[in-house]
Amino acid sequence: MSVSALRSKGGLADALGRLELRFGARFSRGAELRRQHANTVNWLPNEPADAVVFVETTEEVAELVRICAEHRVPVVPFGTGTGLEGHVNAPLGGVSVDLSRMNNVIAVRPEDLDCTVEAGVTRRQLNDYLRDQGLFFPIDPGADASLGGMAATRASGTNAVRYGTMRDSVVNLTAVMADGTIIHTARRARKSSAGYDLTRLLVGSEGTLGIITEVTLRLSGIPEAIAAGVCAFRSVEDACNATILTIQSGIPIARIELLDALMVRATNDFAGLGLPATPHLFVEFHGSAASVEEQARQFGEIAAAFGGGSFQSATRPEDRTKLWQARHDAYFAAKGLRPGASVIATDACVPISRLAECVAETQADIAETGLIAPIVGHVGDGNFHVQMMVDTANPHEVELAEHFLGRLAKRAISMDGTCTGEHGVGQGKRKYLALEHGPALGVMRSIKAALDPLGILNPGKVLPE
Amino acid sequence: MSVSALRSKGGLADALGRLELRFGARFSRGAELRRQHANTVNWLPNEPADAVVFVETTEEVAELVRICAEHRVPVVPFGTGTGLEGHVNAPLGGVSVDLSRMNNVIAVRPEDLDCTVEAGVTRRQLNDYLRDQGLFFPIDPGADASLGGMAATRASGTNAVRYGTMRDSVVNLTAVMADGTIIHTARRARKSSAGYDLTRLLVGSEGTLGIITEVTLRLSGIPEAIAAGVCAFRSVEDACNATILTIQSGIPIARIELLDALMVRATNDFAGLGLPATPHLFVEFHGSAASVEEQARQFGEIAAAFGGGSFQSATRPEDRTKLWQARHDAYFAAKGLRPGASVIATDACVPISRLAECVAETQADIAETGLIAPIVGHVGDGNFHVQMMVDTANPHEVELAEHFLGRLAKRAISMDGTCTGEHGVGQGKRKYLALEHGPALGVMRSIKAALDPLGILNPGKVLPE
Repeated sequence: MSVSALRSKGGLADALGRLELRFGARFSRGAELRRQHANTVNWLPNEPADAVVFVETTEEVAELVRICAEHRVPVVPFGTGTGLEGHVNAPLGGVSVDLSRMNNVIAVRPEDLDCTVEAGVTRRQLNDYLRDQGLFFPIDPGADASLGGMAATRASGTNAVRYGTMRDSVVNLTAVMADGTIIHTARRARKSSAGYDLTRLLVGSEGTLGIITEVTLRLSGIPEAIAAGVCAFRSVEDACNATILTIQSGIPIARIELLDALMVRATNDFAGLGLPATPHLFVEFHGSAASVEEQARQFGEIAAAFGGGSFQSATRPEDRTKLWQARHDAYFAAKGLRPGASVIATDACVPISRLAECVAETQADIAETGLIAPIVGHVGDGNFHVQMMVDTANPHEVELAEHFLGRLAKRAISMDGTCTGEHGVGQGKRKYLALEHGPALGVMRSIKAALDPLGILNPGKVLPE
Repeated sequence: MSVSALRSKGGLADALGRLELRFGARFSRGAELRRQHANTVNWLPNEPADAVVFVETTEEVAELVRICAEHRVPVVPFGTGTGLEGHVNAPLGGVSVDLSRMNNVIAVRPEDLDCTVEAGVTRRQLNDYLRDQGLFFPIDPGADASLGGMAATRASGTNAVRYGTMRDSVVNLTAVMADGTIIHTARRARKSSAGYDLTRLLVGSEGTLGIITEVTLRLSGIPEAIAAGVCAFRSVEDACNATILTIQSGIPIARIELLDALMVRATNDFAGLGLPATPHLFVEFHGSAASVEEQARQFGEIAAAFGGGSFQSATRPEDRTKLWQARHDAYFAAKGLRPGASVIATDACVPISRLAECVAETQADIAETGLIAPIVGHVGDGNFHVQMMVDTANPHEVELAEHFLGRLAKRAISMDGTCTGEHGVGQGKRKYLALEHGPALGVMRSIKAALDPLGILNPGKVLPE
């Protein structure tokens, strides 16, 4: 159901007029601001909202949503704008709700290993805040995203193999529903069997069922000891198989990241790591000093069994920081492989038993297509990324890349995996949901229709037409 | 909305006639069978369905649901009937769908640490099946429940502090929705951001949104080393505070169970453990030999700091089995405290920082009420059980116990906890959901109305009228 079809004549102008009166200088129709609040990160078109409102409280979000609902005007939540699938675009216009000023840490409860933050707090801001208390929040997507946005897209990152994803880390959400009702999805007990799991329903719903305004998160203690290291392999298959055995052996590894040979070359150039130009695993172990030593030894034995080079672990913080900074800068490093081209980052995730096969087929596909596209991945979860370097002004290249994306999604789904492990659906992956979910897609549609009957919450995202 | 109000005249008889034709000897209207398929475990009334059908495939469940939907007849799923809150009662009549014959282990995939089972497979059956492969499924509610039922009630147990609950352990569900549609809620990747989390929506929905017919579960490797032990404390507060510090210290403890003095006395009598009659923690550590030794040492230091008695760990399997059998038999042991009385088991769960306070207030309440009611709990999660010994033929006692239950639920909720950590809502705890969830309850009602518009799926459960 299209919002515009429902919108009463003059509804948009009336709504914007009321919002301007209510929010004053925090309401803007400036073209450049609107452009910045729509998709700017890849080849998806930039589709700006009609106005941007900077909200400061949950009650303000509720007020805004009630006004928009009355006039059938779309509401598109905005955190940091770093989503990779066009999540912040406004294809039907409407209002972009910028939550970045809701950036207060409301409470940290070390005794319960949890905290409550406003949706606009970013993951780095939270970790800076927590450090003195010996706590950290482990989930680390590439960007310094807002925690509300990370909850909305069910984000994860390099630590997920040990600490889980946003699905596992969110204890409770405050959210504004499509009629302006403010709800709390749960209380703070570590577990509950009291009713439907609205927390998990909103996590990953990408602003299409409600707007997340506050997030209560599980925290972890900073480990007593941390060791990190790199290990070279002859092939991606060997690296994947070493990963599989590491997971199967129950080693509680904190991070295990694959970089293919091309990605290692790019990273060498960008970050001066000086690694041999073969596939590598970057790993990290957390625990007591004795446990970390034991894990590193066990991993070293497994790596050696698959022809891995000698594994040396770095325990000095500055060495570890250099390593992981290089890993997190993969996006920028990849850009160096083809200056001037755009990076189109995508992800897929398969059962770990199919990982080596899926990565190998994907590499063959890349070679056949002639794309420059390094692979990097959170392979402990069966999740990997392809970063395509594309001249988006060249329609032939764009078409090649689009077809490649389709084959990758279908390959992952055919292996009982998913078209996205952590980036989300947004606009970019809607077309694969029917294949991935079959009749379950109808259930998702029923939920959307029940909770947002006017279709005003982030229309054009997640569910295909 | 009441199903009976919707039911067309003669609808029930027509539906039962069609089901009898279709299922033959697997359809029964026998009074004793119907009674056994309704609540038999506590003081809640026994409210039988009008018929019982033994299904053998997902397609049969779909066929049954379609017939019942056509005639507006309630459908009540039945696994082992061990739910503690009247989950299997049929207050509006209808059909009890017995899934116990759907007891095939469909696939075990050691390489992915997962398995797929039919809903009627019980947790012990699965663990017997897995043992030769070095794998286990850690979630262990007291009863040998069916895995479909455990998913439906979001069950957990003694291992949840380390391994999570059914919320964390279910990868994918096959379910029959209210119109007979068969869905798969997800694929088998360890994580996904592709659409709404229908898996978590059905986990804990207690058969009110769909009937779970197959479950894909995460498995764990049997640890290389296991050590268990007991530790006596002077007070419940000391034991709780030792628990809190153990969790905060990040010790990856596998089990940490509190037994209050009365429960220890009952367990001594029942299982001959010969422990001093003071509060105890029963604990277990999993990991490598070195890790287990380190965890046990660290726990011993923490326990000593709170006046805990000397902690001795048992590594011999037979000693551990005796210990945990005694813990699992708490229900039967409690019965010995007042022969002839019924055991009314309830549970609550609070943030761990409030645990000592919540247990202490609850003990004071028990003393004041004059109930015989030992406490036992999964305290690492802030979750504890009260087992009331009640003469259910005595209305005064029943009233006392009911008021006590209400105070316990409200106490837990007032401490930012939940009226049930793992037993579920069923019929017994519906009355507390408005207090616990506030406006979020309206969202749950919208979802129920959208997914089961005729109200035929397990009516009278979870959501209050």
